[in-house]
Amino acid sequence: MTGFDPVAAAVESFVAAGGKAADSVEQACLNVDVVVSMLPSDQLVEELYLGPKGILAALNKRSCLLIDSSTISPQASRKVSHGATQHGSRMIDAPVSGGVGGAKAGTLTFMVGGLPDVVAEAEKILQAMGKNIFHAGPAGSGQVVKICNNMLLAIHMIGTSEALNLGVALGMEPKVLSDIMSKSSGRNWSLEVYNPYPGVMENAPASRQYSGGFAVDLMAKDLGLALAASQSAQTATPLGHLARDLFAMWSKLGHGGQDFSSILQLLTPTKAVSA
Amino acid sequence: MTGFDPVAAAVESFVAAGGKAADSVEQACLNVDVVVSMLPSDQLVEELYLGPKGILAALNKRSCLLIDSSTISPQASRKVSHGATQHGSRMIDAPVSGGVGGAKAGTLTFMVGGLPDVVAEAEKILQAMGKNIFHAGPAGSGQVVKICNNMLLAIHMIGTSEALNLGVALGMEPKVLSDIMSKSSGRNWSLEVYNPYPGVMENAPASRQYSGGFAVDLMAKDLGLALAASQSAQTATPLGHLARDLFAMWSKLGHGGQDFSSILQLLTPTKAVSA
Amino acid sequence: MTGFDPVAAAVESFVAAGGKAADSVEQACLNVDVVVSMLPSDQLVEELYLGPKGILAALNKRSCLLIDSSTISPQASRKVSHGATQHGSRMIDAPVSGGVGGAKAGTLTFMVGGLPDVVAEAEKILQAMGKNIFHAGPAGSGQVVKICNNMLLAIHMIGTSEALNLGVALGMEPKVLSDIMSKSSGRNWSLEVYNPYPGVMENAPASRQYSGGFAVDLMAKDLGLALAASQSAQTATPLGHLARDLFAMWSKLGHGGQDFSSILQLLTPTKAVSA
Amino acid sequence: MTGFDPVAAAVESFVAAGGKAADSVEQACLNVDVVVSMLPSDQLVEELYLGPKGILAALNKRSCLLIDSSTISPQASRKVSHGATQHGSRMIDAPVSGGVGGAKAGTLTFMVGGLPDVVAEAEKILQAMGKNIFHAGPAGSGQVVKICNNMLLAIHMIGTSEALNLGVALGMEPKVLSDIMSKSSGRNWSLEVYNPYPGVMENAPASRQYSGGFAVDLMAKDLGLALAASQSAQTATPLGHLARDLFAMWSKLGHGGQDFSSILQLLTPTKAVSA
Repeated sequence: MTGFDPVAAAVESFVAAGGKAADSVEQACLNVDVVVSMLPSDQLVEELYLGPKGILAALNKRSCLLIDSSTISPQASRKVSHGATQHGSRMIDAPVSGGVGGAKAGTLTFMVGGLPDVVAEAEKILQAMGKNIFHAGPAGSGQVVKICNNMLLAIHMIGTSEALNLGVALGMEPKVLSDIMSKSSGRNWSLEVYNPYPGVMENAPASRQYSGGFAVDLMAKDLGLALAASQSAQTATPLGHLARDLFAMWSKLGHGGQDFSSILQLLTPTKAVSA
Repeated sequence: MTGFDPVAAAVESFVAAGGKAADSVEQACLNVDVVVSMLPSDQLVEELYLGPKGILAALNKRSCLLIDSSTISPQASRKVSHGATQHGSRMIDAPVSGGVGGAKAGTLTFMVGGLPDVVAEAEKILQAMGKNIFHAGPAGSGQVVKICNNMLLAIHMIGTSEALNLGVALGMEPKVLSDIMSKSSGRNWSLEVYNPYPGVMENAPASRQYSGGFAVDLMAKDLGLALAASQSAQTATPLGHLARDLFAMWSKLGHGGQDFSSILQLLTPTKAVSA
Repeated sequence: MTGFDPVAAAVESFVAAGGKAADSVEQACLNVDVVVSMLPSDQLVEELYLGPKGILAALNKRSCLLIDSSTISPQASRKVSHGATQHGSRMIDAPVSGGVGGAKAGTLTFMVGGLPDVVAEAEKILQAMGKNIFHAGPAGSGQVVKICNNMLLAIHMIGTSEALNLGVALGMEPKVLSDIMSKSSGRNWSLEVYNPYPGVMENAPASRQYSGGFAVDLMAKDLGLALAASQSAQTATPLGHLARDLFAMWSKLGHGGQDFSSILQLLTPTKAVSA
Repeated sequence: MTGFDPVAAAVESFVAAGGKAADSVEQACLNVDVVVSMLPSDQLVEELYLGPKGILAALNKRSCLLIDSSTISPQASRKVSHGATQHGSRMIDAPVSGGVGGAKAGTLTFMVGGLPDVVAEAEKILQAMGKNIFHAGPAGSGQVVKICNNMLLAIHMIGTSEALNLGVALGMEPKVLSDIMSKSSGRNWSLEVYNPYPGVMENAPASRQYSGGFAVDLMAKDLGLALAASQSAQTATPLGHLARDLFAMWSKLGHGGQDFSSILQLLTPTKAVSA
């Protein structure tokens, strides 16, 4: 397995784990059958695949299985996929959720867009890294599902924070309130699996000063993608937009690197939470 | 079992079901050991219990087990409970969720506030009507949990609607999108149990033109209680407030009697949903 | 002129300015023809006028001109006014805007509710303290106008902050942008008179680290009154609610004592504003 | 004066007013010293200027004064301006406000971005069409000011609607309330010049069933540009986003062609307004 990253430290830890370092995209593409990529923006992904020193150029006429696990806009994803198809390669978009922890443990979730044949071919490779592999539809669909899911996650994380703060301010124990709502119609992933109130769940970021987990800035980025998609699709997403602004404010107040469940603290009396 | 309601039709259907009609609160309280009440506002509940022709006056010196299943403000609930205690009766607040359907089937959820002894005593009676009985804490706690839960429910119902609308506008099948998010971090009760997109779930109100279920106006009422509680507790509930305003608008546009999941239609191109 | 305040320091500065101190409400009401009051909550105003040691009790059978300049709910204001009328006194609600500076300079604005005769009678007294005296309608109308006006003020202050922040982030000079919008349809009081961007207006609180002016906590209080009124009137006020939550958050982050135009900083990259 | 528009009816009315019709962009550019353009999207403006059959190609080596009055994104505007500069032409972006009425009456407002020399040169031409000409800064600045101004306008229009609805629901006359707030800190352009409450201002669209004026769909478009700009600039614009979603909902409910002040009706009991 050959790897390339412009950040030297990333390549080093890859080599330490048994990988072989490449000096360039071109070199990394030599004699491989499968390419897996993951980059943080539309522009970088487009350049990586379609640019003059990019993957398709490096592959020359050779067909390859291309798996892009970046979280980017559906439009950019479709554009790259179209380029790959014209080149003669098979490509899927396969953004992930599950974080660094999930990647190390091999328990990531992949949301996959692409042709059924290609998705089936890629499944063996994805299974080495992930537990759940969902085929969402044609090219770009993985990105659509990722964006929709994360917007919904942001909304119920803030909603859960509002409900817990309100209940505690009215005298409830956060643990008791969480337990009852988890068995009622308020039930949701943020409440049950990733409780944002300190002390309710031992293993949640909230119980370790919101360290680790999924950073505020990454959630803000995904909400930016949702906002752009909502604009191009002309749909109304009032809670999604408000969630984006709350995370953007929270980031600007200096909390961009904390876990996203720390948004509870933007909404609360400091005293109540610091206990 | 004796029953009283100022609405004659309600008394008639009670009698048809085997109950005995009373002409007044006073008469309904004659020789009973347990009183169960359910009224739509703070003022009516206060009058019912504390007024000159109310329950405590009717009981005179006799102690009774009092169960109020109204959804009202925690303050009003505590005030009535305090009056009952001073009178020498045992009282709990036990608002319900589950709707008319749950009431008929005996599968309601009760969120209960009161002293442990009194809650234990009431449990036998509540079990005849409900499946889940949660003891939330001292007097008024049932109301607090109900308010927090329903605010959270309103938020993830709107969030789920936004996510489904966005995904569909970007080309996804609503059923496929729902299935994947139900197994991912976007997971929540509205998505899994009460899907607001027409056709995704056969038994959900969305698949029968949003008839039946939990009315927009009832959700708007509960959000009004949450808003008042948030004001008295000085907490920030931005998504909760926005949810309240969206349901208030939807009601004013003529949809107050529809199921609350119809809020999806306020956020969508009519064409996309009517299909 | 006789004055009473439970806070000793307030009485002392009143005496230093030439007033005569009273030891109680009762003593302050001896032999006066006009009473002017100003208190921070519904409950305190109700107690002051209607309580057993309150103004109406102290006046006994004597009729008086009563001017309440508190900012409270329309309901409480009407209740007190009704009590005064039954007692045989003439009462108006006359909340003010203009702050401590306006009070000292005699340039306050009074928004007045009451009967035309009584308002006419009170005008001479109000003119000694204020520049603009608006008769809004019957009892309680002064409060309604105050609440509506301040909700609208909060909204365009935040809107102005958003527009200035956005323009600056896109490369505009805040002064140039303010000047153009002040002559265009974006024009509003916050932009023209009380610009929230540091340095645009020499005399605005924004140019002295948001000191002085109208405190965040006072705006949050007025928005709480608007929120309660919107709930009782069943109207939708989505921007008003969001404004209330943003000011509540800003207060909890430690800025409750700053001028309300400091809300600009909740919405901005710290770097851009600190310049 | 020569004109071209792909819509035949537009060309016909131009000819009827004394203009000379051209069959293509190329023909319209023959022997002219000044070009004025106005198109509805980034893509169309980029194609018009930079495309193979566009203005710069048509001008060949000839330098020209180029005035683009489209409302588009600052990025697209800068890109086109850069192309014009490289070509050797002088270009400004000069989006307008004032509507069809202002265009006919020659009272438009121009918000202009470009080099001082070029703006000075263009001023004579703009003065024939407009009353106010504001130089905002370098290329693209006209667009930035337009976006910021219209976002602020949308916010205080909705805020004004909320305040008027709330006051009326609490018993105020809308005219009295408007008059007082217009002289107080709630003052803004929507309230004073374009009152959204039916009957308050004889000449406002609200008093003619919201016909004429500035359409909901055009405001929604401008708010979409603000939203995209806020995303690229990473600023928080919570009221701006919410305004965008409210106008988007109102459009989808069938009101896209009405004046934008009709948003008051989304927030109100129908009865109260129809009176």
